[in-house]
Amino acid sequence: MMSYLSHLECPKCGKTYDAGKAQTVCECGSPLLARYDLEVVAKKVKRDDLKGRVSSLWRYRELLPVNDDRNVISLGEGMTPMLASPKLGQAVGLPKLYIKDEGLNPTGTFKARGAAVGVSKARELGIHAVAMPTAGNAGGAWSAYAAKAGLAMYVVMPVDAPDLAKKECVAAGAGTYLVKGLISDAGKIVGQAAKTQGWFDASTLKEPYRIEGKKTMGLEIAEQFEWELPDAILYPTGGGVGIIGIYKALQEMEAIGWIKKGAKWPKLISVQADGCSPIVRAYREGKNVSEFHTGAQTLAAGIRVPKALGDFLVLEAVRETGGVAISVNDDEIMKALLLVARTEGMLICPEGAAAVAALPHLVKQGVLNAGERVVVLNTGSGLKYPDLIAIDLPVLEKEAQLQVATAGERTGGAE
Amino acid sequence: MMSYLSHLECPKCGKTYDAGKAQTVCECGSPLLARYDLEVVAKKVKRDDLKGRVSSLWRYRELLPVNDDRNVISLGEGMTPMLASPKLGQAVGLPKLYIKDEGLNPTGTFKARGAAVGVSKARELGIHAVAMPTAGNAGGAWSAYAAKAGLAMYVVMPVDAPDLAKKECVAAGAGTYLVKGLISDAGKIVGQAAKTQGWFDASTLKEPYRIEGKKTMGLEIAEQFEWELPDAILYPTGGGVGIIGIYKALQEMEAIGWIKKGAKWPKLISVQADGCSPIVRAYREGKNVSEFHTGAQTLAAGIRVPKALGDFLVLEAVRETGGVAISVNDDEIMKALLLVARTEGMLICPEGAAAVAALPHLVKQGVLNAGERVVVLNTGSGLKYPDLIAIDLPVLEKEAQLQVATAGERTGGAE
Repeated sequence: MMSYLSHLECPKCGKTYDAGKAQTVCECGSPLLARYDLEVVAKKVKRDDLKGRVSSLWRYRELLPVNDDRNVISLGEGMTPMLASPKLGQAVGLPKLYIKDEGLNPTGTFKARGAAVGVSKARELGIHAVAMPTAGNAGGAWSAYAAKAGLAMYVVMPVDAPDLAKKECVAAGAGTYLVKGLISDAGKIVGQAAKTQGWFDASTLKEPYRIEGKKTMGLEIAEQFEWELPDAILYPTGGGVGIIGIYKALQEMEAIGWIKKGAKWPKLISVQADGCSPIVRAYREGKNVSEFHTGAQTLAAGIRVPKALGDFLVLEAVRETGGVAISVNDDEIMKALLLVARTEGMLICPEGAAAVAALPHLVKQGVLNAGERVVVLNTGSGLKYPDLIAIDLPVLEKEAQLQVATAGERTGGAE
Repeated sequence: MMSYLSHLECPKCGKTYDAGKAQTVCECGSPLLARYDLEVVAKKVKRDDLKGRVSSLWRYRELLPVNDDRNVISLGEGMTPMLASPKLGQAVGLPKLYIKDEGLNPTGTFKARGAAVGVSKARELGIHAVAMPTAGNAGGAWSAYAAKAGLAMYVVMPVDAPDLAKKECVAAGAGTYLVKGLISDAGKIVGQAAKTQGWFDASTLKEPYRIEGKKTMGLEIAEQFEWELPDAILYPTGGGVGIIGIYKALQEMEAIGWIKKGAKWPKLISVQADGCSPIVRAYREGKNVSEFHTGAQTLAAGIRVPKALGDFLVLEAVRETGGVAISVNDDEIMKALLLVARTEGMLICPEGAAAVAALPHLVKQGVLNAGERVVVLNTGSGLKYPDLIAIDLPVLEKEAQLQVATAGERTGGAE
């Protein structure tokens, strides 16, 4: 199988770039997007061709940027389950609710998608050393794929990033550094070090290909709903690459005829935390770009991004699909996380829980209604956030007898 | 789609039991195995029918024990990736090495397979409350599926079981108890409580259906190798349900013609830890059952099972396939875990690492050779064992400049 990648293009000024060389951002400062020869794909690749293909994001091989199969670095990422969540749906007033569980990716988060495609393409372009700032999980993912690819990896993350992500980087042999600041501070350090050390700066959207990995979420959602698109997709938004990618996937699927021209697209809904909501503010104020959110703070570390390079693309995706941007507070996030665990058996990440927490607000506001098919993207596994769940369990002696007051009933934990 | 389950059978004394009722063990004390109408399956279900089916273990619907689709409780378990691991293979002298990464299951371990099928069947049989002893991960998995199914769940585990597994149980609303002892002590407490409280005792192999979930690993391995079986499968052995299940899958696949009669089966190799190796001892002494391993101790908590109820079935699977049983020490386990992370980018669990650690020994002993296709089952994600990886990372000030001595080279972590 082959890629139909043709070139890179600036979505802001339209300038094009050679995809055969390592590129970063446009001269005008905007991220670059990968473009494919979609007319040929439309002729040569049909939806039915996907049946029986590998159960990973590489099933969409023609719409991914890697030319030579030998450069594909895969740990089994993608084709995560789309899980009907009727009990949770009942609780929030949306009986046709689904959760797409990205926690079943390698390294436990959807960051594996971007890393798989980004690292594969970096290898194809002859890049030997990659550096990136990260809130945690992207660093873990890129370190894993870089290890498999044999690339050197350097990661800088906030000192209060999740411990497990730090450990993933170290285990995979990445040079790992902490900074007393936010991901934006880490980004400055990486930017300078990349120049002096000759590393490739793979910061979010400064590297054009991770979005190609993330867009496969959109392709999978369409395929998993048998090409009848759902009514809304909720996406917890930090850097926003996923929502930009899903929007790009919708455009590409329409161009190649996998979804009907004129078919209603899902409302793309961007969810942030009250403590870090630059996209929500820009959305409400009718602006096309966001402003740096000072004093960013939320327990959902993955969406603690005070200013995203692709903010204008996120806002476009939201507005063009009739979606909204909304934020929730940390209390709501924790309550949603436990509600999902107890109703649907999924231990989701706080970022995914933020999207769940937004559901009742959106129903109340009339943005979503009970008849609609709604998809929440849970971007990662709750296993990566062990500190969120406190336990204080009864300890029995070896010969003890277990006495339970409420035999035969769900206890709701060890209360 | 339908199940061709016909009845339950004792592999020791041959007595049969009604699969329409909740059953535990045989009168003779042996575990019971599910039997299917394989002659009909052979006629009605072909290998090619699997193409395009759901990418989970439920693709093998006819060989699973759940009759009514409405009782299927799924979180997307199974169809985990089979990952060629050439760099690791080179390091251990087995260039055709593969790792099947069970860490990509819901709840992060292969226990999700047993829980999905066990809980689904419990629901079908009208069971309302389930109890089990666990080393940790099975409890996490069963709690998750029970929550989705709406069953009450009670779990007892050793006080030193991994913290994350405890948290999974609590998050999913299970009644969770610790015991100052081993899983065998937990088992005694559960056995008694089940009687007095009217719970179903779902201890390993006292419950006949989790093995049906685990056997799908064998089905997947065959399908993923396009029905040309590999030469050996290494399985880290605690309760042993997985290896018994894979052996059962081989028998069933032969009976229904999915693999050729007389085709060479993979050597099934049971790997334990030096600190808890009852199966290895029985294998070496030519015995058909194991003896309780006193003072069991290993960092690989999942294989710290001093006496497995299905030991005789494990030993049969090993011997009948020309496999062996072997143990490794905890130092070797930790070294193997880091070697896999740095060569193949996978953060595996210590149990899976035990199997990797056994590889060089098996090559040296001539049990495995360089031309053979060898599969290691990594039974879970290393994310569930965060304490195994120590970190001591450099902390930078916001305005710092990153100085790296070995620019452009893999640092091997933050040394």
